[in-house]
Amino acid sequence: MTTMRAAVCHQGEFAISDLPIPTPGPGQLLLRVVRAGICGSDLHARQHTAELAALGADLGYEAIMKPSERVVMGHEFVGEFVAAGPKVRRRWKKGERVVALPMVSTDGAIHMTGFDQDAPGAYAEYVLVQEAFAFAVPNGVTDEDAAFVEPLAVAWHAVRRGEVGKRPAIVIGCGPIGLAVIMMLKASGVKTIVASDLSPTRRELAARCGATVVVDPREQSPWTAYDQPGPVGTILEYAEFGLKAIGTMRAVPLLPWGTLLRVGDKVGASPVGPVVFECVGVPGILDQIMAAAPIRSRIVGVGVCMEPDTMRTVLALNKEHEIRFVFAYDPQEFEHALHLIASGKVDPSPLHTGTVGLEGLAQAFTDLGDPETHAKILVDPSA
Amino acid sequence: MTTMRAAVCHQGEFAISDLPIPTPGPGQLLLRVVRAGICGSDLHARQHTAELAALGADLGYEAIMKPSERVVMGHEFVGEFVAAGPKVRRRWKKGERVVALPMVSTDGAIHMTGFDQDAPGAYAEYVLVQEAFAFAVPNGVTDEDAAFVEPLAVAWHAVRRGEVGKRPAIVIGCGPIGLAVIMMLKASGVKTIVASDLSPTRRELAARCGATVVVDPREQSPWTAYDQPGPVGTILEYAEFGLKAIGTMRAVPLLPWGTLLRVGDKVGASPVGPVVFECVGVPGILDQIMAAAPIRSRIVGVGVCMEPDTMRTVLALNKEHEIRFVFAYDPQEFEHALHLIASGKVDPSPLHTGTVGLEGLAQAFTDLGDPETHAKILVDPSA
Repeated sequence: MTTMRAAVCHQGEFAISDLPIPTPGPGQLLLRVVRAGICGSDLHARQHTAELAALGADLGYEAIMKPSERVVMGHEFVGEFVAAGPKVRRRWKKGERVVALPMVSTDGAIHMTGFDQDAPGAYAEYVLVQEAFAFAVPNGVTDEDAAFVEPLAVAWHAVRRGEVGKRPAIVIGCGPIGLAVIMMLKASGVKTIVASDLSPTRRELAARCGATVVVDPREQSPWTAYDQPGPVGTILEYAEFGLKAIGTMRAVPLLPWGTLLRVGDKVGASPVGPVVFECVGVPGILDQIMAAAPIRSRIVGVGVCMEPDTMRTVLALNKEHEIRFVFAYDPQEFEHALHLIASGKVDPSPLHTGTVGLEGLAQAFTDLGDPETHAKILVDPSA
Repeated sequence: MTTMRAAVCHQGEFAISDLPIPTPGPGQLLLRVVRAGICGSDLHARQHTAELAALGADLGYEAIMKPSERVVMGHEFVGEFVAAGPKVRRRWKKGERVVALPMVSTDGAIHMTGFDQDAPGAYAEYVLVQEAFAFAVPNGVTDEDAAFVEPLAVAWHAVRRGEVGKRPAIVIGCGPIGLAVIMMLKASGVKTIVASDLSPTRRELAARCGATVVVDPREQSPWTAYDQPGPVGTILEYAEFGLKAIGTMRAVPLLPWGTLLRVGDKVGASPVGPVVFECVGVPGILDQIMAAAPIRSRIVGVGVCMEPDTMRTVLALNKEHEIRFVFAYDPQEFEHALHLIASGKVDPSPLHTGTVGLEGLAQAFTDLGDPETHAKILVDPSA
């Protein structure tokens, strides 16, 4: 057998084709794909291929898929070891399960697996990975859970970069990444996790994933739904609190709008505001957060907004908001996400709402548009 | 004498009026204004009064000036002590020079001096200050330099929040605040200070204030004008650097676009990118920075953009930019700015390009629109 079935995306449409089974190059492993997850980035990539290619070019990555190219997507996956290329170091056993970062090195260049015509992804029977980025899946981890390592690594990176500490966390948007962020916040021991989503199904999932307060933002404000650790409501509350302190302390730090820093706070790490995880990624959401979030909120930008976004930065300025945009993860975080699943500290199973074969991919992409039906759909290329 | 001359702003126009000399309330001091600085915020406040009032309301500060109100602006000033209200603690000497945060507490509410009809500012012969926010000016500090404490405190706060450490600093925009940021970066011992401005006069001032590299952005990119401490140029350089490391290290942290974190870097404090001080505050400048700034840049948002701003956040996301919006300062930073001037570590005199009387205020506001003529104009109400 020298060919494999693969779902090829061309001009935004999927077609099942027979492609050659790839040959592992130096340092590479060939895997038989067991499960592949459908990611929001795949939905973006199919709908906004031209914008994505332009973005890649702006960022110095010319190889990203163009509408005219035929690309096999799929960058979240678990597979069974089939064969090794030259210069592979470890002895991998046939059938051993492997997860890997979606990157391969070919001819001295890095390619993003699943977004590059030269690095076909896991919506196929076989996929190549780089041994340097591959990890064996421990026994006891289900195939389905192993397929969630990649999105959980995204969430783990976001939570680490958020440096939440003892601050409350507020998750805006409970799609798969928002839900994964909630799981990782819980695994990190964050006590207050407020989740906000318009969808009742997503809110129910948020509670199952570990949110301590779940709100429908049409009915309840996520910004006041939790026990406030201090006067973190309005700016006037701050000013009043500051005013009372003026009588007793000489140099109580107080900004003109009334923002209070407690004496001794480390600059840049004031514990005043919550850490907000923006997991929606549509134009306008950052403006909403800037308008509504308390003083000194740290906003972690996780959601990918493919269009130019407009916001009133003067609101963020006056409240000294901080925005940390986050992207992907490093290999240690990827490995740690696998360990969190293997140790039982994180259970990704609530995210899994369906499995399809390659033929079901196009319908699955459509179905994922409805938050009431699905969170995460896995692909089983053997089905 | 019970009245004073003051420049009253109404519907965006100045008129010199006779107003009652204010009476110091509990904890307040009456000062005779010696010098008052004209701030970019004053220009904003006069041109965008309605927007500013709307912003204040959004932020919970209803008392901010409205177009229909008659407000005495001026929140950067030095004055001589004239009289004390009840409950003042220290014995202030007649004629002793005082600088103060522009905030007063009246009837249990905080008012922003110079932006509130109930807290007249320093474009007048007399001004009230709160003793809790007032500092005596040491001998040897000129009147002109003392008037610069407030804007230098703004810059000092921005530099502290920027947590530059050993990273290079890039200052975009060399108006008075950009120049003050450069001074404070130099006083903090930052070795690489790149300054970028379209105006030759401003670039010359930037060099005098301590910039180590000065660029005209039409001719030279501020992003490559300094000695790079490592592979901080393009994303492909990162990827290549990462690729070389793959052969020698097991889990070299490498993000899919090729961002390299060195092993052991503290998350959220990666030393990779520069710290960029955005001191322009016009729509589009943040988008330009997101497009051009290197991976893991920290952008300190100092410039006040009064209009909604549009940007491609996906660029910032893929490069993991961080934005820290900063506003004003705390009293300790204000006092520290005074000490930096008094000790000679900071010399604000290059900022000072002219002095006018109250009658010259309207013309000075106009003149400040031309970067080739002026940086900072002071007002001497006795002139």
